[in-house]
Amino acid sequence: MRQRVMRGISALVVASGLAGVAQAQPLTIERFGSFHVGGQEVEISGKPVIEYTPTVGGAPLRIDPNGTYMVGQMYAQFMVPQPVRGTVPLMLWHGAYLTGVTYETTPDGREGWQHYFLRRGWTTYVTDAVERGRSGAAMTPDIFGLAIHLPTSNPWERFRIGDGAGSHARGTVLEGNQFPTEPEQYRAFMRQVVARYLGTDEYVIAAYIALLERVGPSVVIAHSQGGAFAWQVAQRRPDLFRALVLVEPAGTGIAADAAKLKDVPTMLMYGDYVEGDPRWSVIRRNARRFADAVRAAGGTVDDVDLPARGIRGNSHMIMMDRNSDAVAGLIQEWLAARGLWR
Amino acid sequence: MRQRVMRGISALVVASGLAGVAQAQPLTIERFGSFHVGGQEVEISGKPVIEYTPTVGGAPLRIDPNGTYMVGQMYAQFMVPQPVRGTVPLMLWHGAYLTGVTYETTPDGREGWQHYFLRRGWTTYVTDAVERGRSGAAMTPDIFGLAIHLPTSNPWERFRIGDGAGSHARGTVLEGNQFPTEPEQYRAFMRQVVARYLGTDEYVIAAYIALLERVGPSVVIAHSQGGAFAWQVAQRRPDLFRALVLVEPAGTGIAADAAKLKDVPTMLMYGDYVEGDPRWSVIRRNARRFADAVRAAGGTVDDVDLPARGIRGNSHMIMMDRNSDAVAGLIQEWLAARGLWR
Repeated sequence: MRQRVMRGISALVVASGLAGVAQAQPLTIERFGSFHVGGQEVEISGKPVIEYTPTVGGAPLRIDPNGTYMVGQMYAQFMVPQPVRGTVPLMLWHGAYLTGVTYETTPDGREGWQHYFLRRGWTTYVTDAVERGRSGAAMTPDIFGLAIHLPTSNPWERFRIGDGAGSHARGTVLEGNQFPTEPEQYRAFMRQVVARYLGTDEYVIAAYIALLERVGPSVVIAHSQGGAFAWQVAQRRPDLFRALVLVEPAGTGIAADAAKLKDVPTMLMYGDYVEGDPRWSVIRRNARRFADAVRAAGGTVDDVDLPARGIRGNSHMIMMDRNSDAVAGLIQEWLAARGLWR
Repeated sequence: MRQRVMRGISALVVASGLAGVAQAQPLTIERFGSFHVGGQEVEISGKPVIEYTPTVGGAPLRIDPNGTYMVGQMYAQFMVPQPVRGTVPLMLWHGAYLTGVTYETTPDGREGWQHYFLRRGWTTYVTDAVERGRSGAAMTPDIFGLAIHLPTSNPWERFRIGDGAGSHARGTVLEGNQFPTEPEQYRAFMRQVVARYLGTDEYVIAAYIALLERVGPSVVIAHSQGGAFAWQVAQRRPDLFRALVLVEPAGTGIAADAAKLKDVPTMLMYGDYVEGDPRWSVIRRNARRFADAVRAAGGTVDDVDLPARGIRGNSHMIMMDRNSDAVAGLIQEWLAARGLWR
């Protein structure tokens, strides 16, 4: 049986988030701030000087792009609540085309998962993956590879919001979909989108390792592309993971190294409409096959199929869906049940 | 006389920041979060499909870049302290090649100006200017113009840290310089650097106006390139500025429209070593000439020359210099003296 049912989580908790935690209360923050980790200096030489006349102003510029550049570093924003109740820090890693904003707000303006876990006493680290957001940018395609941009129709149709091809133009959504799809809400989501690059995987993995080395063993919640990275990072440094929560990972770890994950307790979660989607059904099948390999090696992967648990309508962007707090509640309870929260 | 001496600020406050505010105390945050403002949909058509084989993996990709993209939006992160003592929100706008991280930390790991003002009861908005950081990225050069990257030697030599050309290679600094220049500190600064683009000025100005329209009249602290933008934004919408603090602005507003700033109380601040620098001495001269035009039209511009006030060693990155809190104290006192803080 691929799907393992989680034990010890009441329907009440799922429906309401953690009882007794008032969302509107002020937060006491012991400290917050940010830093960058990793990166390296790269030498650029032999490129021609650029002659360029800006549109406004008109004075021609001469720009010599040759020199030494810092590339591959990663931005992390930390918040330490008071009191701290998580036994280790909790990291929130986003997916492709996005930044840490994924966890900082929702398209309908509610608090994000960063707030959810902070309010429950977790020290949170929200990152912008290498190449994206506040992490920096390197010459493309010379260093980071080709830049890819996401057209507005793409997530609507690919992230299980709309009902398939052409649905963005039609303005139609999957029945019962929980993603905020009012025009201004969807626009708020598209404003969060950044470019991604096709040559950065090893930079990203190195930076996540550098972050964990600096912070120490942590719980990692990772989404989509970030989930695939998290699995691979955990295979390289399982000692730095106390638990791994994969929210709709878009890929897997290295199959031959599945045994390296045997001591990393893992939750694997997908939302609704997966079987009806030709791409996501394959992605989940691959993830479940990989999870089976981890289990065969003695590891623990709890498979959470949200609709099978009565939680319906979730798109690929679960942390932005209208029931995002209820799903966060599942994660919180799972972490607490593993002794990582007191 | 170009330089006007500010009145009512004691040397004690300058030296120590605001007395009685303990930096290490926890913060009470009423709420925090983020949103994006502005932006528009741009249609890309007629571009060839890209065939690309990623370095790792090897399966060729077909990418059709044609479609509709959201571009020109801007990210803003807000924090509302408790209690609020600023009469209006306080915005922190960064300079070229940088993001809001400018105000979130210092290269030697101290708290930034975001913390300084938050701890004194200001609701803060920290932005990433259009095109940079979490604000998104558009196709370049098609939409945003040419991408320019900053080599590691450039700020050392251009931001009045090192003693002129060749100083980065020599590892030498201006005497008494306050910028954190230990190798790992300077590296921490360079990790904050992002690309900038040469065709985004109107997008940036439009987004700042959209932000002020959403938030309402505010105090704006703006640095370097952000200072030039702030002057121009204030000329278009003076009604949305309660005060303007320009920290080493790299340019000015439109000279013919100087009178539009007559009701925007302004502080103009430069650090040390300006007269000895061929570029910064010209920039400051232009800014002071512009300030004279604003004064001639009945406006108020208080010119703060830090070394003339006994505050020495400041680089272009004043909010990162070791005496950053002392300088923030000058701004705080000036805002309080204008009745904007209670």
